[in-house]
Amino acid sequence: MKFPQILLAAAGLLLPLASLATPGFSGPAVKPGAVAKAAPAVRIDPTYWWVGMKNPKLQLLVNAPGIAGSTASLAAYPGVALESQQKLESPNYLVVNLTIGPDTKPGQLKLSFKGGKSLTYSYELRARNTDPQRTQGLTQADFIYMLMPDRFSNGDPKNDVVKGTRVNHIARDSMYARHGGDLKGIQNHFDYFKKLGATAIWPTPVIENDMPKASYHGYAVTDCYQTDPRYGTNADYQQFVKAAHADGLKVVQDIVLNHWGSYHHLFLDKPAADWFHAFPTFTRSNYNAFALNDPYGSKRDYQLFNDGWFDTTMPDVNQGNPLVATYIIQNFLWWVESTGIDGYRVDTYPYSEPNFLMEWGNAITEEYPKLAQFGEAWEGTEAEQAFFAQNILPPVNGFKSNMPGLLDFQICFAISDALKTENGDLSKLYHALQGDWLYVDATRNVPFLDNHDMSRFYSVIGEDFGKFKTGIAWLLTLRGTPQLYYGTEVLMKNFSNPDGKVREDFPGGFAGDKVNYFTTRVGQAGEAFDYVSKLANYRKAHPVLSSGKLMQFIPQDGVYTYFRYSDGESVMIIANNTKDEKKVDGTRFAERTNGFSTGVEVVSGAIISDLKALTVPAHTAWVVELRR
Amino acid sequence: MKFPQILLAAAGLLLPLASLATPGFSGPAVKPGAVAKAAPAVRIDPTYWWVGMKNPKLQLLVNAPGIAGSTASLAAYPGVALESQQKLESPNYLVVNLTIGPDTKPGQLKLSFKGGKSLTYSYELRARNTDPQRTQGLTQADFIYMLMPDRFSNGDPKNDVVKGTRVNHIARDSMYARHGGDLKGIQNHFDYFKKLGATAIWPTPVIENDMPKASYHGYAVTDCYQTDPRYGTNADYQQFVKAAHADGLKVVQDIVLNHWGSYHHLFLDKPAADWFHAFPTFTRSNYNAFALNDPYGSKRDYQLFNDGWFDTTMPDVNQGNPLVATYIIQNFLWWVESTGIDGYRVDTYPYSEPNFLMEWGNAITEEYPKLAQFGEAWEGTEAEQAFFAQNILPPVNGFKSNMPGLLDFQICFAISDALKTENGDLSKLYHALQGDWLYVDATRNVPFLDNHDMSRFYSVIGEDFGKFKTGIAWLLTLRGTPQLYYGTEVLMKNFSNPDGKVREDFPGGFAGDKVNYFTTRVGQAGEAFDYVSKLANYRKAHPVLSSGKLMQFIPQDGVYTYFRYSDGESVMIIANNTKDEKKVDGTRFAERTNGFSTGVEVVSGAIISDLKALTVPAHTAWVVELRR
Repeated sequence: MKFPQILLAAAGLLLPLASLATPGFSGPAVKPGAVAKAAPAVRIDPTYWWVGMKNPKLQLLVNAPGIAGSTASLAAYPGVALESQQKLESPNYLVVNLTIGPDTKPGQLKLSFKGGKSLTYSYELRARNTDPQRTQGLTQADFIYMLMPDRFSNGDPKNDVVKGTRVNHIARDSMYARHGGDLKGIQNHFDYFKKLGATAIWPTPVIENDMPKASYHGYAVTDCYQTDPRYGTNADYQQFVKAAHADGLKVVQDIVLNHWGSYHHLFLDKPAADWFHAFPTFTRSNYNAFALNDPYGSKRDYQLFNDGWFDTTMPDVNQGNPLVATYIIQNFLWWVESTGIDGYRVDTYPYSEPNFLMEWGNAITEEYPKLAQFGEAWEGTEAEQAFFAQNILPPVNGFKSNMPGLLDFQICFAISDALKTENGDLSKLYHALQGDWLYVDATRNVPFLDNHDMSRFYSVIGEDFGKFKTGIAWLLTLRGTPQLYYGTEVLMKNFSNPDGKVREDFPGGFAGDKVNYFTTRVGQAGEAFDYVSKLANYRKAHPVLSSGKLMQFIPQDGVYTYFRYSDGESVMIIANNTKDEKKVDGTRFAERTNGFSTGVEVVSGAIISDLKALTVPAHTAWVVELRR
Repeated sequence: MKFPQILLAAAGLLLPLASLATPGFSGPAVKPGAVAKAAPAVRIDPTYWWVGMKNPKLQLLVNAPGIAGSTASLAAYPGVALESQQKLESPNYLVVNLTIGPDTKPGQLKLSFKGGKSLTYSYELRARNTDPQRTQGLTQADFIYMLMPDRFSNGDPKNDVVKGTRVNHIARDSMYARHGGDLKGIQNHFDYFKKLGATAIWPTPVIENDMPKASYHGYAVTDCYQTDPRYGTNADYQQFVKAAHADGLKVVQDIVLNHWGSYHHLFLDKPAADWFHAFPTFTRSNYNAFALNDPYGSKRDYQLFNDGWFDTTMPDVNQGNPLVATYIIQNFLWWVESTGIDGYRVDTYPYSEPNFLMEWGNAITEEYPKLAQFGEAWEGTEAEQAFFAQNILPPVNGFKSNMPGLLDFQICFAISDALKTENGDLSKLYHALQGDWLYVDATRNVPFLDNHDMSRFYSVIGEDFGKFKTGIAWLLTLRGTPQLYYGTEVLMKNFSNPDGKVREDFPGGFAGDKVNYFTTRVGQAGEAFDYVSKLANYRKAHPVLSSGKLMQFIPQDGVYTYFRYSDGESVMIIANNTKDEKKVDGTRFAERTNGFSTGVEVVSGAIISDLKALTVPAHTAWVVELRR
């Protein structure tokens, strides 16, 4: 997510939303009439659990009016013990701690609450799903297609407006309204992803965002245990992941650890005031992660970064409260186990409490070592970015990130800088890769050209098709698991001012669309799709491009050259980033071209007849399979 | 030193110098007639040595025609043993290895050489100088004045042209010729430095550069054991350091480990071909230190960086040869011991062999733990700069720098970026300081605004006096030991195109100068001097500005604020870097201003009446001593 003052100010939403959130600051007051859907008499989170989890502990958050005065008991159930219970500040919550022994069988736990409020609850312990297709993780061989479910395709018009939610309409002509896209819409186009060569889908968050306005993006969660009904039910989401797996596609879930939406049920009716960071008046994050490891930083800047709200509508969750930390950790174990997703993309990763991040990562990795994890750390310097991944540095202020990989903003900035001007600077891209020396394993990073928070790549590079192909060629041949933002493959355009302009509907995803890019891609959009598709499918067929070693040469004279190589294959990626044809002395690359004499450009099929003397046209990238 | 293709191309010197150096590539050939001064019959380096050094070993390089065929012997001398001798490729050299026991007395060693060439040599072992004023090192309390001896002041016209050197004239109207400045000229102005508030002098290299052209800068050494005779004799240099110390000034010696001048006697008559890096044809360094720790780097880029020549006239010394490594290490122990200098500034630090750098640093630090050392690592990213200092990172490719501090190019770039445009970006300066987290102790770095290789600060910032004062205020209040380039204090101008333009004579340093800025600084030059002087002298009197803790706040709205503080004192540095007056809510800085209510701007004396509400004029920096 990007700093929202920009997008909200642009949307004219800043004041009304700010006023909405204000009542919630000072305690657990319930906002009258704010709960749209009917609350159940009793709610327990996690909504169900499993036997056979590595961690035998389970913290239940029981929510019912007056429940705090009750005493919980558990009917005898072999393997399960009720260890303790804990009252919170609100009368409406009770924490009940269970242990679930290793040989416990699935079934229904009978919980009884007596005293203040008397009730019984049948809590389900399920068997774990052992389908080997579930939670396979990602490798560099994958290629992630990122999309916004609301804006991609509407597969089920019946869930466009869901009764009981806070929005009673869709409006495709408004960039802030919901447009009706859903999981079914995505699933309808699995073939499209496969044709493109993508192997994984990353939708922006699909969890419930029952906010009154502009929550189509998904980053303001209001119920941690529900799929947003406009996208589908929890069962639909589970089926979606299963169908993707059956079709050879992986699914990445986009999650937010740092904040929830201001209509989250636990914010409207807080278990305790200290479940959220609160200030006397609305206080925004300073969006400055450098404060975390600034040897000269002030406590104020540190606290504002960590505890300040990401936005007026996004209360900052207090993960320093162990109950909250456990609530969140269990929630994200729950989603993996209940769906079988392959990876987590962690939004605003640096904004959460450093100690919590380590605890969260350890817990997730312990239970799901194969699950992919990559974080969003939108930082301005290579060192600061590396600080938020597993790196070769000692802990700083007690923090040592265990995040395996990151969205690689350094690569993104570098490619933009190289391509956005005539004869742009290539050194940043060279430096961004060289900066991998700071990581434990930078191949777990996710390079990308643009996303939902950024101006679209094709616009950034001045709609230059040669530069477009160069960017795609780099994206698909650098180390890491590349990510493409929906529509970039068909040259969707616009600057992120406001964000809605880069979140337009995919043409053909919605009933009545005059143009359908899923089936008919005319002109350069078709050429663009074909370029991505050919290269991505070549990449699939030639592991050297994903798992091969990488060797780069210092950019010279506006030409940047690197190689992917393995015992069997060798591919040269050479890009002329100038407006003039360049003659390149290929003998400079002898370390990698020795034993080869010619090559084939893998997209165009052009023969490169002499590796020693290369003539590369203006603004052209070649991906050259070397031939002996 | 900066990449010389630029300066040489600009000077039109590239071709003639390239042709000069070419004959030397392929072996130990002596260039006929190239030796200008009369060579002694026998030369032994180090030219003398001391008893009581921590390292008992001494490697003598004996140079005399045909000496390789001789056998060396040592007349009995208590404590000293001749351990071994070694022939080299050239018939004119012999290496003789001695050990000098801990209780050895000073005196003359009688060395005899018999066989091929018979001769005797009386080698001096001196007593070490125990004057406590010698080699005091630098602390953050120091303030370094950097100058070019040839261009600063001519104190001794008798040494302007020295018979037997390769240049027979001075020419003050040529930016490539020598102008006649010397050590005496510097010494004549010790009072000037002190009035300015400087505490240390860093002249560009004073060691012999007996090159036929453009060696006034000093970075093309031709005799490692001689002061350049145009500056003075070795005795003059020793006296210079002693006089400086007596006057309360320290001396930093500027040295080059990576290369020598192409008229160095050991290049003209090489001990062996492998004393230098050689290529089939002249091969330049790629000037790209990133190749050293690029996880994807090619061997070629690594080798070109390390072994390529810095310039046609600067052969790259092969420090991978242990004899060469020892030759260089002993040379730099010799200069410390023979002069008592306080620190080394190490030119082109990253360009030397990584293993050698560690060995050199260990040897120098072991013998002179108080000696200051800071390196030139002109790198584009904070992480790459930190790679070349003592940092918190594990070794990379076997290299872990032991260089205590660096010239802080990140600070220099950041200050330029902040000030060179209207409403320039302050975040780089904030980030540059934050980047200190990568260092073991970044207070050993040397911040600066410009130097002999860069456009002059006052020109870079568009000759804006408000910005000038802001830059000086930052320079003198940030952590580290600040360095000022001569003339910056009197607003000397020019862009470094070519370099000679930023190496102009200091007005008043030379006979016949119409303007004398040592004594009469008219107009804004005087204001500038006074600003530097007042702040530097305040800094001297108030240790909080040098050794106090530092706390910075995130720049906001074009205003950057940080504090230096200690138990006793607290100083706020607040800079408005915009063209508009700014109202600043000072309560944001409560962590540092609590307990204080007002302040005094230390240069102007202006009273800051309310720390809670500050109104800072456009392009203004205040250095505010806080008052209770």
